[in-house]
Amino acid sequence: MGWNRVAVIGGGITEFGELFDRELEQLAADAYIQALGSVDKGIDPNAIQAGYFGTVMGTLQGNEIPSGAVLANAIGLVGKPVTRIENGCPTGSEAVRQGCLAVASGVFDLVAVVGAEKLRELPTRDSLLESGRLGHPTLMYARTAATLFAPAATRHMYEYGTTREHMAAVVVKNRENGSLNPKAQRQSQVTIEEVLDSPLVCTPFNVLDCCPQTDGAAAVILCNAEIAERYSDNPVMVAGFGAATENLFIHEKVDQTGFAATQEAARVAYAMACISPKELDLAEVHDCFSATEIINYEDLGFCEKGAGRRMVENGETKRSGRLPVSASGGLLAKGHPVGATGVSQIVEICNQLLGRAEAQQVEIRNGYGLQHNIGGYSCAVSNVTILSGSPN
Amino acid sequence: MGWNRVAVIGGGITEFGELFDRELEQLAADAYIQALGSVDKGIDPNAIQAGYFGTVMGTLQGNEIPSGAVLANAIGLVGKPVTRIENGCPTGSEAVRQGCLAVASGVFDLVAVVGAEKLRELPTRDSLLESGRLGHPTLMYARTAATLFAPAATRHMYEYGTTREHMAAVVVKNRENGSLNPKAQRQSQVTIEEVLDSPLVCTPFNVLDCCPQTDGAAAVILCNAEIAERYSDNPVMVAGFGAATENLFIHEKVDQTGFAATQEAARVAYAMACISPKELDLAEVHDCFSATEIINYEDLGFCEKGAGRRMVENGETKRSGRLPVSASGGLLAKGHPVGATGVSQIVEICNQLLGRAEAQQVEIRNGYGLQHNIGGYSCAVSNVTILSGSPN
Repeated sequence: MGWNRVAVIGGGITEFGELFDRELEQLAADAYIQALGSVDKGIDPNAIQAGYFGTVMGTLQGNEIPSGAVLANAIGLVGKPVTRIENGCPTGSEAVRQGCLAVASGVFDLVAVVGAEKLRELPTRDSLLESGRLGHPTLMYARTAATLFAPAATRHMYEYGTTREHMAAVVVKNRENGSLNPKAQRQSQVTIEEVLDSPLVCTPFNVLDCCPQTDGAAAVILCNAEIAERYSDNPVMVAGFGAATENLFIHEKVDQTGFAATQEAARVAYAMACISPKELDLAEVHDCFSATEIINYEDLGFCEKGAGRRMVENGETKRSGRLPVSASGGLLAKGHPVGATGVSQIVEICNQLLGRAEAQQVEIRNGYGLQHNIGGYSCAVSNVTILSGSPN
Repeated sequence: MGWNRVAVIGGGITEFGELFDRELEQLAADAYIQALGSVDKGIDPNAIQAGYFGTVMGTLQGNEIPSGAVLANAIGLVGKPVTRIENGCPTGSEAVRQGCLAVASGVFDLVAVVGAEKLRELPTRDSLLESGRLGHPTLMYARTAATLFAPAATRHMYEYGTTREHMAAVVVKNRENGSLNPKAQRQSQVTIEEVLDSPLVCTPFNVLDCCPQTDGAAAVILCNAEIAERYSDNPVMVAGFGAATENLFIHEKVDQTGFAATQEAARVAYAMACISPKELDLAEVHDCFSATEIINYEDLGFCEKGAGRRMVENGETKRSGRLPVSASGGLLAKGHPVGATGVSQIVEICNQLLGRAEAQQVEIRNGYGLQHNIGGYSCAVSNVTILSGSPN
């Protein structure tokens, strides 16, 4: 039957992109107001009892300790408890998980979760390159996201015959999906050749294999499932979730072709939701790099180990395929405003399950959708959330 | 009857100070191992199901996004979900609050919470002064902790007749208490005259009115109250907790002589614990500056508004007084390793309630103790935790 103790009764997402005209606080408020407005039967904002703020850099590009008070002030929750969560790339989905635990505890019935990030205004002295030049202990060795994910991609190519063309096909698929998403940072489509001919970032990734860094925000309203009918005749339920950690150093990892944190988070989430991957109608996975999506298919149990490339070859994860993945465009098209990303994926799954995804809508049969993030220092944290719902 | 759904079955604190010989991860592990070792009937570390990591600066003095994976690796929780919490000065107590919600949700029975901070190794280019010099948008105006708390202290002096001597008496009391705490950063005692003659930091605070910045860690093991007897014949119960936020800007604050976030967090915590301040046997409050402690007395309901100074005059908060405050030495003597501070206060209250506080022990009558933090950007976040227990 699944956990189903918490319902998602509202959700909102700002456009993602280079949003120089809006501060982090404004983006958070824009997403939250959308989320409130999306509650089917309406909601008094004063009924929200607590907040969770998912942000990695916070205000001032990480130079200030934000705390939950920044969100409380931005969205009108002053007085109430608001907690800042930072958990690497899964920050947004982890904030939602904490919100779910808070509601399930019985202490709160209505909780707002907002993820927000501003990554396009990094001052020069705090840029990765500048941090490296100044002797930052890891960045000076060019230890960036691309160099963290590249070894897994390379080893996957060696072990399982995954090619640059498979990776490029993921980019083509997600950019095509993204061209239907008016909020995506990258609205244009690309071809296999354009991906393969784009400038090299770090073998095997060219620049079009990499998701962009992004400004944006997303929000959900979580509600005790027992009273959700007050706010919606058809709420989406949180069927299950899992979060997991992994060893921090590459030499400690047993599997160099997959991410143990994803595998464990998925195991926990499927068990909690009482479903198998076969019952999923769609998924939004963490495609920070093209190859990451192929690895995710395997880690999340969408196919056997090593068979990720076959899902690409067969078009199984296209919008019309047996398991559409990243129908929103994914990180590759939407962009990756880290704290917002996981929350936005959850909003997108909810909209799909309710049949409200407009041009991106996929077929809903069993009524289950999955959201996934992987990342943090050395790909060592992952979250998986399984939602259930169906159109009225 | 109070909430009492979560028990504290173990706790540990490292020494606080300039700990150049140990990394953040080692400090976290030291506190956690102590906490495991303090469980009365013993505990298998593999039984711990989830972790919370309270840290403001994380590793590399905030230059790296730590995520919960850093703690998972440091203390042997790899594979399990570990969440990093940052909520300004209440970071540690907020991490404990999240741990309590997680246990109360029924998803986890045993959760570890570790707060840890390294503040003594800040590289020069990231120091406050350097950040200001380089044009940091707030620090260039000298907007530091002292300048945030000073206006409230000054106004309190004007409105209620609080004097520099009252503030100095708080320092004398807490440094005397700290001289009995072998883990305190400052072990020496001071006199009223020494406080008044110490160098000015920011009117009305001299340097001895200010708590030091500190390295250290603290940990607690939280357990579903229904199964706590497996681990202890006499567990301490979490009777209630409250967290609250406030307006971020001084011109928006209604009360310039108190902290609204503390007042609200306390109201929620007392209601949840079903007690009034009169039933407290002791408290550990956030004495980041001498005057803050006097203001806290009033905000936490230990006395009427404006009467904080009388509690000092009458010695009511000394170890032998009617309501001992900061018997551990408080932040003024122990130091303030931000993420660890709140967790350490909770460990200290537990030890006191169980009669295990050695030289610092105070009299336990009703079996209630209170922990408090206030801070964050503009004193806008506060946590209050109320614990209940008594010696065997």
